[in-house]
Amino acid sequence: MAGLLVETGRAALIGSLSLLLAACAAPALRGTGDLGVVIERASGSVQVVDNTHQTSLGRVEGLGDLSHASVVFSRDARYAYVFGRDGAISKVDLLRLILVRRVAQASNSIGGAISSDGKVIAAQNYQPGGVRLFDADSLALLADVPAAPGVNGKPSRVVGLADLPGKRFAYALFDADEIDVMDASDPAHPVVERHPGAGKSPYDGLASMDGRYFLAGLYGEDGLSLLDTWRPDLGVRRVLAGYGRGEQAMPVYKMPHLRGWSLAGDYAFLPAVGHHQVLMADNRSWAQVATVPVLGQPVFVMAEPSGRRVWVNFAFPDNDKVQVIDVPTRAVIATLHPGKAILHMEFTPRGDAVWLSSRDDDKLVVIDTASLKTVRELPARSPSGVFFSWRAGRMGM
Amino acid sequence: MAGLLVETGRAALIGSLSLLLAACAAPALRGTGDLGVVIERASGSVQVVDNTHQTSLGRVEGLGDLSHASVVFSRDARYAYVFGRDGAISKVDLLRLILVRRVAQASNSIGGAISSDGKVIAAQNYQPGGVRLFDADSLALLADVPAAPGVNGKPSRVVGLADLPGKRFAYALFDADEIDVMDASDPAHPVVERHPGAGKSPYDGLASMDGRYFLAGLYGEDGLSLLDTWRPDLGVRRVLAGYGRGEQAMPVYKMPHLRGWSLAGDYAFLPAVGHHQVLMADNRSWAQVATVPVLGQPVFVMAEPSGRRVWVNFAFPDNDKVQVIDVPTRAVIATLHPGKAILHMEFTPRGDAVWLSSRDDDKLVVIDTASLKTVRELPARSPSGVFFSWRAGRMGM
Repeated sequence: MAGLLVETGRAALIGSLSLLLAACAAPALRGTGDLGVVIERASGSVQVVDNTHQTSLGRVEGLGDLSHASVVFSRDARYAYVFGRDGAISKVDLLRLILVRRVAQASNSIGGAISSDGKVIAAQNYQPGGVRLFDADSLALLADVPAAPGVNGKPSRVVGLADLPGKRFAYALFDADEIDVMDASDPAHPVVERHPGAGKSPYDGLASMDGRYFLAGLYGEDGLSLLDTWRPDLGVRRVLAGYGRGEQAMPVYKMPHLRGWSLAGDYAFLPAVGHHQVLMADNRSWAQVATVPVLGQPVFVMAEPSGRRVWVNFAFPDNDKVQVIDVPTRAVIATLHPGKAILHMEFTPRGDAVWLSSRDDDKLVVIDTASLKTVRELPARSPSGVFFSWRAGRMGM
Repeated sequence: MAGLLVETGRAALIGSLSLLLAACAAPALRGTGDLGVVIERASGSVQVVDNTHQTSLGRVEGLGDLSHASVVFSRDARYAYVFGRDGAISKVDLLRLILVRRVAQASNSIGGAISSDGKVIAAQNYQPGGVRLFDADSLALLADVPAAPGVNGKPSRVVGLADLPGKRFAYALFDADEIDVMDASDPAHPVVERHPGAGKSPYDGLASMDGRYFLAGLYGEDGLSLLDTWRPDLGVRRVLAGYGRGEQAMPVYKMPHLRGWSLAGDYAFLPAVGHHQVLMADNRSWAQVATVPVLGQPVFVMAEPSGRRVWVNFAFPDNDKVQVIDVPTRAVIATLHPGKAILHMEFTPRGDAVWLSSRDDDKLVVIDTASLKTVRELPARSPSGVFFSWRAGRMGM
């Protein structure tokens, strides 16, 4: 009997031990400032990477349809919020490498943003149109903000959603030709400032790095719509009048995202739509200052954090190449062949390396920006977007 | 005997349990994107804070003389490197709240920086003059780079050290009137590009947010020295000719640090030396565009990350006040009295709050930037500098 008690006590101790092991063994303590998330579109998974040691930390699965997925990070850079094409938001713990929560919040969605205080997640939806706000911790719904209707009477599809300072979000209404700014200081009762007549069919948008300006690309006409959020009374004005598909509609293999633009130094760098060119515009006057010929139709035009060089990837059939432009001389200084179907590029925070996703070679390619040499390749399943956790502290992401 | 064995086994189990508890109990898993370090100058300690929950996580002691201390963060935002006035570098683990390493590397020092790849720590020294490079992991000495000598024949004191992209550092030589740019790609054999004749007695320096420009303040003459690191062939030029102590030396209670400047949006905001004014300059032409009257001699002039407002603290006897300037109207919109001897200010990454150190009230004050209300006060021992971990991903810190 005494022996049995001892054994029971021992079993209890072993049980406690196992629990403790389970609780504390798995993830080692580590900082989260150098983490990254890679979208693996075909398999509905993300890979978590360490951009200091250039290693993979693991894979998290079960995220649904990740074609056209995007990612924002929690304020502490521990969690990634992945917005899927199927309208789901998945919250991934980058330390434990688990899917913490997943909310199917719409049936068709195109990304989201996180508020400047890190407390609110905003999702921009196609079906049903509008914006929904969620608690960043629990993913509980806080508000459902319908968008103005399009000609079909249904709430407009929402595009270009970006966080602005002061717990605000800016976005454009594709079907209603409108730019809206939402103040989500009280996220259960958001207040929307509307700018109708903002140009025909805005298809994407981006905010400047300080969150002052919001730009929308237009599908239905040339030029871009610009809102100065410091002067909402001035309304939306048109800039870069020549920008767009042009009067004679050209074959455009892939409509470039505005998030593929760069606002760096004194310039905006942008892919010319349908042309084999990168445009450089003055980011004060929005006058075009240079046109740099490149080898194909540019998709992402990404400036190094220094603004000194700009990296460009291309639409099919040139999507196996990347070109590097030297900003002072405005000339291509290198053409790289990193892999098949280069879909995205992400720089380390201070630009010592760039990570490329090569979808059709199922790999990630890490290039040292000083030597332009590939320093590491990592296997990945049909990778598309690469997102690093330095985004947690930036605006307009 | 069997009972004894059982007891021994049990004791061993309990021992293992205790070890495990010790190993895994202390620090919980957490992200490091929202951490901060507060210098407690009188007690040689730092307080580690969480800027999301506005709480103190603990104190780390034994850091020596922390008057005029500064902090940089490791690339993963887990470690803080604290540069003391006594020439020591202390590496603090923000998760375990312990002093990991401490190196007394000079007898008199004034700060440091971390290379763009996070691998090299650079310390700028007064005694002996020059720059020393250390391995960011081990703090082992990598290189000792002497500075050009001053008139006394000794290596110059080094000021204004800032990281530039491409594993470079820029700094100024107070005793040798020189600006240097060091390439530390091979940190055991750094290469120095020298710009002599850079103005009389540069006393501080700063780099633009993209690491392109380096500016040095001059103690011995009016104006500032500007180096465009994209065009080193053009050498150093003088800008803001009227800036400085003026021809008639005025009483200056505290020579403002250039790190108290802000380069935000299209403007540089800077404290007028000896005047009750904040100057606004165009950051392309360096022409002064406005003078904003304030209530005392400004020390730190810090723009919110949005660039929309600028916060100003003051030299004695006005160091119990803080003023807030609205940038579009160029007018003071608020005067706050947060506490005695406000020495420093630090914004959360996207500017929803600002933390102030009140040295003589032994407290930290957290102010909501939307309402300008104090939302939290935390006790601290004679706090001075406040540094948040978002700096890990930025240049020129």
